Amino acid sequence: MGAGLFIISFPFASAQHLSISDSAAIRKIYDQALVSGKAYENLRTLCKEAPGRLSGSANAEKAVHLTAQMLREAGADTVWLQPVQVPAWERGETQAILKVSGSERNLEAVTLGGSVGTNNQWIEAEVIELPGIEALKMAKEEQIRGKIVFLNEAMNPRNVNTFASYGACGGNRVFGADEAGKKGAVAVLVRSLTLSHDHHPHTGVMIYRSEQKIPGLAVSTAEAKTLSELLAKNTRLRVALKLSCRDLGFKPSFNVIAELRGRKFPQEIVVAGGHLDSWDTGEGAHDDGAGCIHSIETLRILAQLPFRPDRTFRCVLFMNEENGGMGADAYAKLAEQEQKRGIRHIAAIESDRGGFTPRGFSFETQGLGAAKAQAFLDRFSHELHPYQLQLITKEGSGADVGKLQSTGAALFGFLPDSQRYFDVHHAETDRFENVHKRELELGAAAVASLSYLLSQHGLELPKGKKGD
Amino acid sequence: MGAGLFIISFPFASAQHLSISDSAAIRKIYDQALVSGKAYENLRTLCKEAPGRLSGSANAEKAVHLTAQMLREAGADTVWLQPVQVPAWERGETQAILKVSGSERNLEAVTLGGSVGTNNQWIEAEVIELPGIEALKMAKEEQIRGKIVFLNEAMNPRNVNTFASYGACGGNRVFGADEAGKKGAVAVLVRSLTLSHDHHPHTGVMIYRSEQKIPGLAVSTAEAKTLSELLAKNTRLRVALKLSCRDLGFKPSFNVIAELRGRKFPQEIVVAGGHLDSWDTGEGAHDDGAGCIHSIETLRILAQLPFRPDRTFRCVLFMNEENGGMGADAYAKLAEQEQKRGIRHIAAIESDRGGFTPRGFSFETQGLGAAKAQAFLDRFSHELHPYQLQLITKEGSGADVGKLQSTGAALFGFLPDSQRYFDVHHAETDRFENVHKRELELGAAAVASLSYLLSQHGLELPKGKKGD
Repeated sequence: MGAGLFIISFPFASAQHLSISDSAAIRKIYDQALVSGKAYENLRTLCKEAPGRLSGSANAEKAVHLTAQMLREAGADTVWLQPVQVPAWERGETQAILKVSGSERNLEAVTLGGSVGTNNQWIEAEVIELPGIEALKMAKEEQIRGKIVFLNEAMNPRNVNTFASYGACGGNRVFGADEAGKKGAVAVLVRSLTLSHDHHPHTGVMIYRSEQKIPGLAVSTAEAKTLSELLAKNTRLRVALKLSCRDLGFKPSFNVIAELRGRKFPQEIVVAGGHLDSWDTGEGAHDDGAGCIHSIETLRILAQLPFRPDRTFRCVLFMNEENGGMGADAYAKLAEQEQKRGIRHIAAIESDRGGFTPRGFSFETQGLGAAKAQAFLDRFSHELHPYQLQLITKEGSGADVGKLQSTGAALFGFLPDSQRYFDVHHAETDRFENVHKRELELGAAAVASLSYLLSQHGLELPKGKKGD
Repeated sequence: MGAGLFIISFPFASAQHLSISDSAAIRKIYDQALVSGKAYENLRTLCKEAPGRLSGSANAEKAVHLTAQMLREAGADTVWLQPVQVPAWERGETQAILKVSGSERNLEAVTLGGSVGTNNQWIEAEVIELPGIEALKMAKEEQIRGKIVFLNEAMNPRNVNTFASYGACGGNRVFGADEAGKKGAVAVLVRSLTLSHDHHPHTGVMIYRSEQKIPGLAVSTAEAKTLSELLAKNTRLRVALKLSCRDLGFKPSFNVIAELRGRKFPQEIVVAGGHLDSWDTGEGAHDDGAGCIHSIETLRILAQLPFRPDRTFRCVLFMNEENGGMGADAYAKLAEQEQKRGIRHIAAIESDRGGFTPRGFSFETQGLGAAKAQAFLDRFSHELHPYQLQLITKEGSGADVGKLQSTGAALFGFLPDSQRYFDVHHAETDRFENVHKRELELGAAAVASLSYLLSQHGLELPKGKKGD
């Protein structure tokens, strides 16, 4: 491992084929995705053979080999594995009991990723509800000490873009335990980050900044409602926890990288990527199996075109996006090293918002590539609009591709419809069955179309042209 | 019945409130829909208390009274029922048996709406597959006579807009039995009109133009695949049918109409509407419970605004869209009569494409209102884009509102995302549980926003302005 398989290919097509218009090429891309697409069956394989691909786990390793094989079969010129050290954390068993007025039942809760366990012991305490991490920061220590803090901040339903609401209250999950620990709490329960009222707790990463490490869990939104109603009635309410989760230190893993060598400018690189790791609660179907499959399918479709695009296309499947970002760091370092050898990243697209109906693209507004990214989307809007790709936002690219800023590449994020994403995000419901075949295929076609345009035209405007 | 309840209201708000900007009004509309919306619970009531609202059925009648009550509770100034005579057809029992090489099993099939039955007898014949109605028109009579014709035309997966594919092969279902009957066939099996490969047969209307009336059924796409594979292997394959469906003649029913009287120009009418009837195979949740609920919620939201819009808003729930269009005919006649009394329809919006995430609006390109409709969407695109309403197409308005063309009104169709619509359309799966709460609410907000802009500004450009 480490060195990939080199497949001989014949990238030079006939002159006749080279004259195909952008519109005709994009039509071919959509036909490939919608009529003879491999996206759906590849996602099924990834989700069913390697569900819950938490960094450092056996299924994450299995996913590395499965996707490398998919990329070879997709027609990559080269497939290789880039070694990465990743933090490994193991969920173990979560026991969470709600004790109300003498009766007990299981709490609908899941341990947050990175949480400490309870050292093989039960911890039990009274629950205090706060409306969110800002209120926790304001709270007096004597209110908090010895308690289990319940942070019950709902995602704001007013934003059409659900990611805006997620961003606005993500701090509860990420830093809630850290803030509560500093004030002497014994554990934190965070309301799940979803707009849906249901019984599925949603996990996700949490981070300790101080040494007072206390366990963090997410409760389902239905459970959050119940807890809040009970507390409003001054019900005596205690929670007992026994968590066997633990930190396993660092483990070796890989990014999976595959290339289609460019016809005219092979030293210029266009990336499309997603992240290969996922939370272990579900199958990682939307997050981010879909993004990986979009990127693999992009390579397959570009390889099927009647001619090879001018620049090199690279599919990058990043390891460890969920709890460390080590794959993105390693790849960014590689890109910097390559730059010294004259291999230049000109653009990158991240797909990490699920496998739903495509709406458009966002772009990174910081860095040297920002203006180019916006100009490129403007310049080719007439090719994208007929495929209902009309939404252009300044929401950046993504956690993995965003680290390529120093290369000067134009950085894009693929934007599928956001309404259903947080229904399944980091929950048991993020399963293959909750991905819609055509929506997934259209996502692959959208990422492939932008990848094609970038590979074919590059980021510089044609000579004598100041933009149109 | 027939005359509605008149509710006293106080449409005049304070001068301060009248100064609210369009942006602020639309923000209020979205907040109402997303934070305190009634759409989801109203749809649940409609689907669970009056599922399968086939014209002339008891549940269609129940739906008339349920929605009239919802409109009263929503704050309508007036709610009334417009009498309509509708064709009534009863499904009865569908027995369809597939006989292959001596063994028998039920065929995954459903009778098409309007089909004749089998006179309390079994009919049985060999099956002949054709790739669609065009091939049937070309086929020789001796090929067809005495057979059951299986029209196996798949919807084209290449169109991003699934309605384009539906339109292109709808003729198989609507006229397949008529064409086959003329050539002596004994029945027709039509491949279900869906892009999904599944086990749900999809019904829908069929029409006889000749006197040779033979039964028509739809088979699931999975069944179509099986039949086609068996026939390709020259398997001896017969189908036996016993259908007790029947035509019940005409029955009395109603359109449901509710008004919010305009502040300045009450004689100018803006309509939003959907159709109240549905097929009886499912609950009519997306088709068109969602459209009715969008329209009811629009009235509720407009009534909640801090001021009353200038023109009269009317919610119209049309009866009998699925198999006759009698409600639309009756309403169009009413609009013509009103016009003689100086009551003028200036615009109408139809919502009949399901309760999915909003994408934008289409408009009618024929008639006096066409140019105005397009100009209006252009003029207010800056208000709609922030809510991700960017898709503008020339696909017309809809089967009900489209009949208002002669009034000169600008006619619009609401466009939700189309990917999942034909998964559930006219099938058992068109149930409340398959509607997403936020997507439904966003649909209501989109219809309400366009209704608001039309009611407030009218269709004429401000004086001295030639468009911006």
